[in-house]
Amino acid sequence: MNPITVIRERIAKFGLDGVLFNTSEVTRSFNLRYISGFSGSDATILITMSELRLFTDGRYKLQSKEECKDFQVHVTRDKIRSISNLLLRKNIKRLGLEGNRISFNLVSALQRSCRDIELVSFDRRNLDSLRIRKDRSEIEKIVCAANIASSACSDLLETSLSGFTEIEIAGRLEFLFKKRGASGESFETIVASGSRSALPHGMPTEKRVQLGELLIVDFGCMFSNYCSDETVTLVVGAPSSQQKKIHQVVYDAHQRALDCLEAGIRCCDVDAVARKTIAEAGYGQYFLHSLGHGVGLEVHEAPYLSPRSKTILEEGMVFTIEPGIYVEGFGGVRLESLVHLTASGPEILSKVSKGLISVD
Amino acid sequence: MNPITVIRERIAKFGLDGVLFNTSEVTRSFNLRYISGFSGSDATILITMSELRLFTDGRYKLQSKEECKDFQVHVTRDKIRSISNLLLRKNIKRLGLEGNRISFNLVSALQRSCRDIELVSFDRRNLDSLRIRKDRSEIEKIVCAANIASSACSDLLETSLSGFTEIEIAGRLEFLFKKRGASGESFETIVASGSRSALPHGMPTEKRVQLGELLIVDFGCMFSNYCSDETVTLVVGAPSSQQKKIHQVVYDAHQRALDCLEAGIRCCDVDAVARKTIAEAGYGQYFLHSLGHGVGLEVHEAPYLSPRSKTILEEGMVFTIEPGIYVEGFGGVRLESLVHLTASGPEILSKVSKGLISVD
Repeated sequence: MNPITVIRERIAKFGLDGVLFNTSEVTRSFNLRYISGFSGSDATILITMSELRLFTDGRYKLQSKEECKDFQVHVTRDKIRSISNLLLRKNIKRLGLEGNRISFNLVSALQRSCRDIELVSFDRRNLDSLRIRKDRSEIEKIVCAANIASSACSDLLETSLSGFTEIEIAGRLEFLFKKRGASGESFETIVASGSRSALPHGMPTEKRVQLGELLIVDFGCMFSNYCSDETVTLVVGAPSSQQKKIHQVVYDAHQRALDCLEAGIRCCDVDAVARKTIAEAGYGQYFLHSLGHGVGLEVHEAPYLSPRSKTILEEGMVFTIEPGIYVEGFGGVRLESLVHLTASGPEILSKVSKGLISVD
Repeated sequence: MNPITVIRERIAKFGLDGVLFNTSEVTRSFNLRYISGFSGSDATILITMSELRLFTDGRYKLQSKEECKDFQVHVTRDKIRSISNLLLRKNIKRLGLEGNRISFNLVSALQRSCRDIELVSFDRRNLDSLRIRKDRSEIEKIVCAANIASSACSDLLETSLSGFTEIEIAGRLEFLFKKRGASGESFETIVASGSRSALPHGMPTEKRVQLGELLIVDFGCMFSNYCSDETVTLVVGAPSSQQKKIHQVVYDAHQRALDCLEAGIRCCDVDAVARKTIAEAGYGQYFLHSLGHGVGLEVHEAPYLSPRSKTILEEGMVFTIEPGIYVEGFGGVRLESLVHLTASGPEILSKVSKGLISVD
């Protein structure tokens, strides 16, 4: 559904006169970008039942007119005054806000200039649904991002990794993203080796990768503003029996979660399938996070495949399946695939094998 | 001066009972990091005249105790409740906030649970001064970042660039950062060629660099959480007379600004020296931005070398000098050096030549 239609439904449902989104260098609003098309770093949009307005400064004069054709653009040096004047003129008394991305300063300034205004924060769930199902053009961009990232990783795995630092390996992978046309990474690439692989978010360090170690590489790139996300776990040299065993458990959890995916299943039930597999193998206490999360303009967005989420998976959703086992002092294994749920089941967008990969 | 001492001076000056900073995945507070040492993505700190408290969740239990030795750490699942309880118990009625980085939701939650509380936003200038002068350990990290970035760029310039895309060139440079131990980029590398070099913030595209074109490369890396920032302008092949002329004007503006730097001069007066040089050469209308900005934990921070800033430059400040001329349809030249102001004058931290560099 058109995002503006969704927002207007919310305006009616909550008895609002309008909704305001703000993006700045300090706090970006991906909803603002999604709704308006604006890709710059400073703008405010106001949506009412009859109007679409965008306020920005001179730097974005041309760009905003090109990107935001549905919006009436105000180029202004005093954004607060321009917005306040419009709010007063249109008699807007009850205004919805993206409460976790609107600053205290902006709210205070609006309240100073529009004394009667009531500001209402949207619950996150009320906006999450906006971007939760992807349309064809979004899917195409995510597929491109996923293909670039997988292909770059496959290339990386054909070279020798032993003896290189984690930071060097991350740098090499990111270079391969850009060489294939990605605009950058969708998050800081995770490269964690040896006992560091037991850290679910181990940032790359100067540590050199050594023979016999587990190596987790969690990576994603950006293509046309959309993200990808995938994780592989490698062994440098020949795997030990314990490495093989833990990998097999995670592999089974990953596979069973994929196998149960279909439109209509709840997020918590998919999480439970993977969690049960790991628990039955005796590693329940070592699976430290949720099974997965949605991916789109942001690398973490709805749906959230957590033990608590009752959200129902639907056609058009794109999310990760990423079980892991992390044993302090020994190391960890995480396997992550990006999935697009279609009417006929899951389409796996990640292309690197999730088998136990041995590299030099 | 110790940042906690500075904050306590502000508490006294503004008649506050305490000051609160919050960092989240949506909005990072570099002041929180600077004051407490906390490097994770979710925490709140409360500073009063007698106490230092940090609130975070289980993910950061070990890390916060290691990083924030001066603070009493509260690990909590309900941050708002823990903070509110403390505010009530300590009878905190007037609380200072970093207004542009505290969300409406957080403010609303505090107001709901502490009904009498008065929240006061700090003016940006009141916090800018906190990090404006760098101590020796900060300077060391910035010097490392600047050295890595300059050395990576020098290597890049020894290879052929003609025929490669802007994105590929950015990727190659970023790989060279990591190879030298940088943890990443301090901002999205700018590579803008041909007529695109007239865009002050031209993000790299699939456009291939061609013989005869101007090429602006604006780059920086991160080392130990500190940023660097430098810009070079290249010509692919032999420069034309107009390219040489514009480069010479920018070179002179850059040099004269550097020459006038000394402790005690105002930011606006340094900006004026560069701006006058460019205006006298007939290009005044093409210098579209301020002369420079401070660099530290953030790549843009105080001091701001703008035509309006009366801030006085002092020993220990680190900032850029970056005049530019941007001619739509023709192209642009920007030259940027990172400078550390010492008692004996400016120390130039950027190492790549600002002469007109011709590359293959």
